[in-house]
Amino acid sequence: MRVDVLTLFPEMFDGVFGSSILGKAQDKGIIRLNAVNFRDYSGNKHHMVDDTPYGGGGGMVLKPEPIFNAVESLLESDPPQQGQGESLRPPRIILMCPQGETFTQKKAEELAREDRLIFICGHYEGYDERIREHLVTDELSIGDYVLTGGELPAMVVIDSVARLLPGVLGNETSAITDSFSTGLLEYPHYTRPAQFRDHKVPDILLSGHHANVADWRRREALRRTWQRRPDLLEHAELSAKDLKWLAEIKLEQQ
Amino acid sequence: MRVDVLTLFPEMFDGVFGSSILGKAQDKGIIRLNAVNFRDYSGNKHHMVDDTPYGGGGGMVLKPEPIFNAVESLLESDPPQQGQGESLRPPRIILMCPQGETFTQKKAEELAREDRLIFICGHYEGYDERIREHLVTDELSIGDYVLTGGELPAMVVIDSVARLLPGVLGNETSAITDSFSTGLLEYPHYTRPAQFRDHKVPDILLSGHHANVADWRRREALRRTWQRRPDLLEHAELSAKDLKWLAEIKLEQQ
Repeated sequence: MRVDVLTLFPEMFDGVFGSSILGKAQDKGIIRLNAVNFRDYSGNKHHMVDDTPYGGGGGMVLKPEPIFNAVESLLESDPPQQGQGESLRPPRIILMCPQGETFTQKKAEELAREDRLIFICGHYEGYDERIREHLVTDELSIGDYVLTGGELPAMVVIDSVARLLPGVLGNETSAITDSFSTGLLEYPHYTRPAQFRDHKVPDILLSGHHANVADWRRREALRRTWQRRPDLLEHAELSAKDLKWLAEIKLEQQ
Repeated sequence: MRVDVLTLFPEMFDGVFGSSILGKAQDKGIIRLNAVNFRDYSGNKHHMVDDTPYGGGGGMVLKPEPIFNAVESLLESDPPQQGQGESLRPPRIILMCPQGETFTQKKAEELAREDRLIFICGHYEGYDERIREHLVTDELSIGDYVLTGGELPAMVVIDSVARLLPGVLGNETSAITDSFSTGLLEYPHYTRPAQFRDHKVPDILLSGHHANVADWRRREALRRTWQRRPDLLEHAELSAKDLKWLAEIKLEQQ
């Protein structure tokens, strides 16, 4: 997968692109990450990338030319490949913005099937509407909070997509991180020491009785999900046993 | 405000802490950002920070000692200050995890009133439950997607909190970025050129008629919110005029 990020702050990506999963995925040749400063594509001698809004009001608006020019230059320098019998797949051009569709794990899975992603990150400013209308294929938001720019949201999306690419996750990772794949929040984890200060690991986890451990874990996952994110229970696959446990949990907590 | 981040990947924070708003806020002395490797607090000679889970199963679990030790060392080296007539405010100790409360702008505003935040970022692994039960004050998730670690989520929370601190945002920023403060998504922005390729700016924005521009913008904000995030309309403050426009918009789109 090739991933380009258009930003006025390419240096923000250095630490994240170079570390951990993303660093390893690049070393293995599974992903190519590239941060591009779209100021280099301004097309004017003052390297201006934003201007005041038509119709008045405060703030600045990112001009269309630098963004269109940068995207087109990236596509020309490395045109989409057409395999034998395959149709040409145009890249996804993704605008990070608060008005976008809320990013979810399902969207991460969808983007992980692409060959090429281009992210556009504004900073402080709004985007000229023509960028939305005539250039991008997707608009994404990572949540309902205000951030300084699209850079951190792009990193979040890239991380969640990269870890789904075959070969990226090694043995150091596991299903333990995959909270949303079962539809429930995770059960509590414990490791050594069995007693830390006054705080002991629940006896059942030290019992060696696998079926009881499995039951306890499922029950605690149900309890935590019900307490913290009851909305998730509406879409989780629940067995008759799960439903019985849930009823008991609700009684216990009253 | 003082912000410490416990992580096994402190280098991930270099680019983000050094750039843009967060870099400037530190230069102005408004915020102190510090990434700490909790492996330095393992308390064992092999610097082990994780171990296999009690009760079996895959994956690794972060041990309690390194995290407790690191937090306590930070608090001892810089104890919470007690001002005259003020009660002692203990720091917020925030665990970044998928099981946490979903982060929102309201939570950002709450955290921006604190003097000190300590973030705990796991990576791949689960957390020993005793960290949740006996150390942290908050558990936060930035959204329903799976990430490799808590580092990017911590950066997101820190960015959203830092920009709310008095003196951090300069004139380069403005209400234009504050999508969630009006309760509606933003209206479309346009800047020069008035015609970019075949794409023109709407005539009304070039008219110079301020009242008409204001009406157009409000109407387009309503349209976009209704099309993309109808859930936001339930909590937005809407005037009688807004409701009339909304009714018209719904008819137009049919």
